[in-house]
Amino acid sequence: MRLALVKRLLVGAPMPLAQARHERLGKAVALAVFASDPLSSVAYATEEILLVLILAGSVALSYSLPVALGIAALLAIVVTSYRQTVAAYPQGGGAYLVAKDNIGVFPALTAAAALLVDYVLTVAVSVAAGIAALTSAVPALLPYRVVLAVLSVAGIALGNLRGVRESGRMFAAPTYFFVASILGMVGYGLVAALFGWLPAAPYEPHPPGLEGIGLFLILRAYAAGCTALTGVEAVSNGVQALKPPEGRNAQAIMTWLGVISITMFLGITYLAYDFGIVPGGHETVVSKIARRVFGSGAPYYAVQTATMLILLLAANTSYAGFPLLSSILSRDRFVPRQFANQGDRLVFSNGILILSGFAILLIVGFGGDTHALLPLYAIGVFISFTLSQGGMVRRWLRLREKGWRWRVWVNGVGAVVTGIVLLTLTVTKFTEGAWIVVLVIPLLVAAFLLMHRHYEDVAAALSLEGFEGPPPFQHTVLVLIGDVHRGVVRAVQYAKTLAPTATVRGVFVETDPAHTARLEEKWSKWGLGVPLVVLTSPYRSLLRPFLDYLDQIQARGDDQMVTVVLPEFLPRHWWQHVLHNQTALLIKGALLFRKNTVVADVPYLLKRHP
Amino acid sequence: MRLALVKRLLVGAPMPLAQARHERLGKAVALAVFASDPLSSVAYATEEILLVLILAGSVALSYSLPVALGIAALLAIVVTSYRQTVAAYPQGGGAYLVAKDNIGVFPALTAAAALLVDYVLTVAVSVAAGIAALTSAVPALLPYRVVLAVLSVAGIALGNLRGVRESGRMFAAPTYFFVASILGMVGYGLVAALFGWLPAAPYEPHPPGLEGIGLFLILRAYAAGCTALTGVEAVSNGVQALKPPEGRNAQAIMTWLGVISITMFLGITYLAYDFGIVPGGHETVVSKIARRVFGSGAPYYAVQTATMLILLLAANTSYAGFPLLSSILSRDRFVPRQFANQGDRLVFSNGILILSGFAILLIVGFGGDTHALLPLYAIGVFISFTLSQGGMVRRWLRLREKGWRWRVWVNGVGAVVTGIVLLTLTVTKFTEGAWIVVLVIPLLVAAFLLMHRHYEDVAAALSLEGFEGPPPFQHTVLVLIGDVHRGVVRAVQYAKTLAPTATVRGVFVETDPAHTARLEEKWSKWGLGVPLVVLTSPYRSLLRPFLDYLDQIQARGDDQMVTVVLPEFLPRHWWQHVLHNQTALLIKGALLFRKNTVVADVPYLLKRHP
Repeated sequence: MRLALVKRLLVGAPMPLAQARHERLGKAVALAVFASDPLSSVAYATEEILLVLILAGSVALSYSLPVALGIAALLAIVVTSYRQTVAAYPQGGGAYLVAKDNIGVFPALTAAAALLVDYVLTVAVSVAAGIAALTSAVPALLPYRVVLAVLSVAGIALGNLRGVRESGRMFAAPTYFFVASILGMVGYGLVAALFGWLPAAPYEPHPPGLEGIGLFLILRAYAAGCTALTGVEAVSNGVQALKPPEGRNAQAIMTWLGVISITMFLGITYLAYDFGIVPGGHETVVSKIARRVFGSGAPYYAVQTATMLILLLAANTSYAGFPLLSSILSRDRFVPRQFANQGDRLVFSNGILILSGFAILLIVGFGGDTHALLPLYAIGVFISFTLSQGGMVRRWLRLREKGWRWRVWVNGVGAVVTGIVLLTLTVTKFTEGAWIVVLVIPLLVAAFLLMHRHYEDVAAALSLEGFEGPPPFQHTVLVLIGDVHRGVVRAVQYAKTLAPTATVRGVFVETDPAHTARLEEKWSKWGLGVPLVVLTSPYRSLLRPFLDYLDQIQARGDDQMVTVVLPEFLPRHWWQHVLHNQTALLIKGALLFRKNTVVADVPYLLKRHP
Repeated sequence: MRLALVKRLLVGAPMPLAQARHERLGKAVALAVFASDPLSSVAYATEEILLVLILAGSVALSYSLPVALGIAALLAIVVTSYRQTVAAYPQGGGAYLVAKDNIGVFPALTAAAALLVDYVLTVAVSVAAGIAALTSAVPALLPYRVVLAVLSVAGIALGNLRGVRESGRMFAAPTYFFVASILGMVGYGLVAALFGWLPAAPYEPHPPGLEGIGLFLILRAYAAGCTALTGVEAVSNGVQALKPPEGRNAQAIMTWLGVISITMFLGITYLAYDFGIVPGGHETVVSKIARRVFGSGAPYYAVQTATMLILLLAANTSYAGFPLLSSILSRDRFVPRQFANQGDRLVFSNGILILSGFAILLIVGFGGDTHALLPLYAIGVFISFTLSQGGMVRRWLRLREKGWRWRVWVNGVGAVVTGIVLLTLTVTKFTEGAWIVVLVIPLLVAAFLLMHRHYEDVAAALSLEGFEGPPPFQHTVLVLIGDVHRGVVRAVQYAKTLAPTATVRGVFVETDPAHTARLEEKWSKWGLGVPLVVLTSPYRSLLRPFLDYLDQIQARGDDQMVTVVLPEFLPRHWWQHVLHNQTALLIKGALLFRKNTVVADVPYLLKRHP
């Protein structure tokens, strides 16, 4: 009862099923919910490019502009390609569904594994980067970044356990605040730089180049910048959560997303180039730009606050996606059934808890360092991009709807380009951590397939097809007693109603022969005519002689059903349970997985002694 | 089954009850078992005296001799006093029993609490000091002292879970080895010093005095040295474990104990004085003496090894005493019943586990530092000394047996002297940690009394005196289903045998109305004629509508017994359980403490699909 109250206070009152439709998101709120992930990645994408280029010295930083343009082009291609997906799958067209629908189960499960891994990484990376925005502004908090990140994940999880719309509302304001402050910073920064309003740049040491500028370095920079694309698929996974018409709304959201995302990314990258920002140290590139543009006044803190908020909240995208995908996988019997259950507040609670647990593990394992986590991130995203768009190509080829040639082209370019990027990512980031993902995804797929086979086996074994009805059984009822008291008498009375009296027996395991006579005397008075079996226990063990006795009864055949009745009593306070019923617990544990054996506790409520 | 095998390998095969008597200890083995604790305390008692005296500068160290003589006198008084106790209580005369028998329940519980605390401290202190003997000889191990100490406790616990005599045997050799090597060191050291065989003393810095020599400092040194008395009561608690005649054997053991203990303690203290040993640093005083006498040859390592072994094994005294005392307290209903159960190997397993757990907590909490743990130690010992001997005085006054006047004198002196020492200890060591014990003992006593009252209440409520037999009840059997399959059919068949068919019902909680019609159709075919109740669930919760339905049935009166039958199936592999039966678990949890409600799982064994 107390636990229920705590749950109620934390996650709110349960919601009736009829409320589910009203939980759908309007366009403006949905853009905020789904955009937080893709938009927020501009907070670290530029930095990742610069961190690769700086290896060739500060001169190489100017290559960030062509690299960024290339990434913007890729983003445009992917967004265009996904516009077709969301329109074709208004019921929600995540990579898993699209691949399953068009290519096959194995690619679909690969996409699903990649997506699940990415949802976890989105939470870990976004929260780590959000805390980095905070510690850039308030360096004193740097030593606490892991603790702060873990607390943030816990907070977001709680918000999501409360339900869809409430979290949607919570996320709208910060997203628009972020867009406004980054575009404000970029716009004012460009104008101010043009008119020379800015103070002279502070001296920053420019590290010497350790590597030459070559194609491989540029490719690595490009791969690093591809983190800007993470989250673009969020809309396609969540179309179901939009207000109808879902498909058209999703397309509009995709377009807006692409436009805003590209503008912000190019703006930040250009300013970083123009200001000669050198990446590294304990301050983020965005923080360095904002400090150059605004000094250390209120606008600077506004940018940092907005960045931190959107990143913390970007994690929310995963809280919409992960539980939804795992519930779909659960309905297809690829993951445990528990993921299919919606909680009292119409959210998939188990998915939310698992997601948070793994994200916290990653954050703690990588010391809350965004840069260390990022190499793991983009691989999964591009696997799902490639599979989803490849699936769309197959779809158009199969359906040959109006305009299919053009559509094949769009999705085909998307699939090929993202496939090439995927290869590049795997090669350039393999040793930096990408190998973990390359290892985990096949393991997940194998686990999905194993679980699926198990569920299929069980369904076959339980199927009523060809079933001729259960065979009849012989029923023996045993009341296991350690003493004779009111609770025991109650249990014997109960046992006598279960089966003909001839097959009911009291069972007493004798651990101290001195007590047996007294007990038998009490039984003769209060045993309600039921015979008592006394089992000797040379080893003082209670369990062993009883199990031997059970074996003896059940050895008579597969038709021997035994019900073990355990007298228990209910103390007035729950903590008093620790002082009682331990033996019953032991017996229940030992009989838990035993065939043809039913355990029944008969509770006796202790009344206050007059 | 696998767990059972691991247990068997670790703790050995179970022993029949008839073997209990053969587990009794002969005199020589018993001296070793019970002496390891009192004898081993000479390994740190001298050091504790010196660590107080050094506060007044190295000149003050010569006061160690009169202080040690005073402690030897106290030891003689206590041993003489206890000789009377063990003779009077051959069935085992721990402070708890003596106080309960002669003074009253409250002092007895105080003694019991003090003893339990001391058993834990004996383990923690002895193991910490044993590891200190090791790190004195091998300083490289110093950083690992906490880990080594924890592993040692675990090892000792395991040895004791295997049974009494096996641990007795294990402990005899090291005890005699210790006595021989310490007496050898003292004897050779005295002779060698007398004849000038020893090399010149190495230079040791003599710290200047920080405090003046005064009565309070001498008292503190005396109090610190009282740790030499810890463990003397061990014999009186364990008389029961001796071969008959228990009383006489115990007296002989007490005498030997006193003589050996005083000889070793005075010998070590004298050599420390004669050699001008300065305490402190990371080497123990005994190690410093042994190094002076033997250099760094084999005999030095023999002394250190013997010291380490006896200290590690001294902890064993507690493993005889703590479980025995807690089983006695349990039979008197002052602690939970679980402590009264002997395990398969005739030892009180729960007591052994609890003792080890708390000792490990103390070791980790105090960083494995003997000197930090010791202020907590002696208080409890002297509480039990005082209460036990006070109890003996009351006994002689009451019984007036032959020679009672003399006996009152012996125990009276013991009680008064130890009472004064107790006060001194409390005052001088209060701020150093003794306050913890002063706080814990009353809390334990309060807990004992609370548990006792609860057990008495329960016994009264369950008593058959004046019981008029259980009132008749109405029985309803509900089979809770989520689907219709072979396991469900089996459960329905079982339910039909429990009660007249009219009162058996299937119950289905509808979370998705789309599935209901299909389910009802299957039920009509396979429900064996039992009516089906469909409960709607506006909140998608399975539990709530079912609990409401139960409430509705049971609201008809206190005579409404409901048996909830849950169909479960048994997968072929235990790990597959995670994938199933979660709902059954939830239901069982919710109904666990519910009156008039019996839960019965009906298992269905999955057969391999043909």
